[in-house]
Amino acid sequence: MTPASKAELSLDDKKHKASAWFKDLRNQICDSFEAIEKTNKGPLSDRKAGKFERKPWDRTDQNDGTHGGGGVMSIMRGGRVFEKVGVNISTVHGTFTPEFAKNIAGAEEDPRFFATGISLVAHMNSPRVPAVHMNTRFIVTTKHWFGGGADLNAPLPNESDTADFHNAFKDCGDRHNPDYYLKHKAWCDEYFYIPHRGVARGQGGIFYDQLNTGDFDADFAYTQDVGRTFNTIYPALVTRHMDDTWTEAERERQLEYRGTYAEFNLVYDRGTTFGLKTGGNVEAILMSLPPMAKWP
Amino acid sequence: MTPASKAELSLDDKKHKASAWFKDLRNQICDSFEAIEKTNKGPLSDRKAGKFERKPWDRTDQNDGTHGGGGVMSIMRGGRVFEKVGVNISTVHGTFTPEFAKNIAGAEEDPRFFATGISLVAHMNSPRVPAVHMNTRFIVTTKHWFGGGADLNAPLPNESDTADFHNAFKDCGDRHNPDYYLKHKAWCDEYFYIPHRGVARGQGGIFYDQLNTGDFDADFAYTQDVGRTFNTIYPALVTRHMDDTWTEAERERQLEYRGTYAEFNLVYDRGTTFGLKTGGNVEAILMSLPPMAKWP
Repeated sequence: MTPASKAELSLDDKKHKASAWFKDLRNQICDSFEAIEKTNKGPLSDRKAGKFERKPWDRTDQNDGTHGGGGVMSIMRGGRVFEKVGVNISTVHGTFTPEFAKNIAGAEEDPRFFATGISLVAHMNSPRVPAVHMNTRFIVTTKHWFGGGADLNAPLPNESDTADFHNAFKDCGDRHNPDYYLKHKAWCDEYFYIPHRGVARGQGGIFYDQLNTGDFDADFAYTQDVGRTFNTIYPALVTRHMDDTWTEAERERQLEYRGTYAEFNLVYDRGTTFGLKTGGNVEAILMSLPPMAKWP
Repeated sequence: MTPASKAELSLDDKKHKASAWFKDLRNQICDSFEAIEKTNKGPLSDRKAGKFERKPWDRTDQNDGTHGGGGVMSIMRGGRVFEKVGVNISTVHGTFTPEFAKNIAGAEEDPRFFATGISLVAHMNSPRVPAVHMNTRFIVTTKHWFGGGADLNAPLPNESDTADFHNAFKDCGDRHNPDYYLKHKAWCDEYFYIPHRGVARGQGGIFYDQLNTGDFDADFAYTQDVGRTFNTIYPALVTRHMDDTWTEAERERQLEYRGTYAEFNLVYDRGTTFGLKTGGNVEAILMSLPPMAKWP
């Protein structure tokens, strides 16, 4: 079926399809993480299996009538495997400030926006299990596009984990466009870099933004595939290492790694710094910060 | 003696007097903190008394020939009372980038600068002993001025500690100018505020900048008095609480408080964000971050 043969979806249909998918993906991920908790026999399996708690939040009360929407944060804390995971879904609309509108595609003509997305950060008990970040989103101004990505953050990087994570997203990209993986990998490397330390934040993955090829279905299919790929490869890497014991020195290394991770998020991450400085939902934005970190 | 009767100091003399004072103050503070460690009989007195280690650093190798100078970091870790204290002195010179020069008094005409100062952050083992920050500096562009301040950061604030800290700096200010305390207290409250959380970072103190009354000796005397006042009141507050035991819940509160402290430094603090984004000495800049922090 070529694009021409399809009935064009209305913008409202696109918004609904995207936000319904992000909710569906949230459910799939929470299920797979809770399944890991239930079956784990690792070093902390004397703990109760971790479960997500859901907390809805509302944007309306922070703003005047032209802003609205909200989201749901799902948080699991103190599990057998997951030390702290936050999965936030949100669907919001509003008006960019003139200063911000200048930097957003399609917003200079009309500063109103709609945004729906899912954002996830997982911090793990074991320093041998990589932490991870994943986010996908659909943004509408006078233009509209998908963006997102996933990146691995192992305190003790392991070549085969890194290779498997990248290969999963290479295969994912290749199913849609032979250029996607290399382009989105390079973008990820560029974005998750900590200039003041001269190091990458983690082992990379993919990052993409302003994806609008003119074929909504194709762009949406890629974004869905990124989510499904994440929910396949990451649980596999967790399962691979979750029963290993670890040393105190490895845990220290993890806590220091998390300090650097927090530095990136608070100093450079555009979503975090923009959100904090423009009255976003602080709890949802700072959900990404590690449960414990060290700067010894 | 009125200013008119004094021989005016050359700018080089002013630079030397200021930087010699910051070094002298560093020695006085390190001595008083080490004396606390030696005599402490508190909950962690089975540990070896903490001692400062000094580490010189050099700015020259990071820059071209027009930049230079350096400093010395004094760090005490894992003491009986002090969990991590950094005291950094530095005397540097260079040229501001055109973009930065616009925001610095006297630098638009000529972007060359000289800066000498002392900066201190103390993070304490006990959640009942307040943490603290202190910094004083002398900056020279085509203009020259003093700046600095000190602010208290108790995870479990205590009215009499807060009052005593403020009264010490009120007395200090009053010895120099009856307007200083209220003005510099208000400036501190304004600066150490965390907008995204809608809370102050700590219990305040004083903050001042661009102090040049036309009388170098008077301005220098105030800056010296701020340093001496700090080295009197803060050790007194430490001594007051250092032998108290604390609960696990109080320690948790402290670690969360430190998370918020780190947020301020990484998101808002001008010295930190400017330093990180312009190739400053990362170790010296991030010395302020807490040894351990939580975002539960």
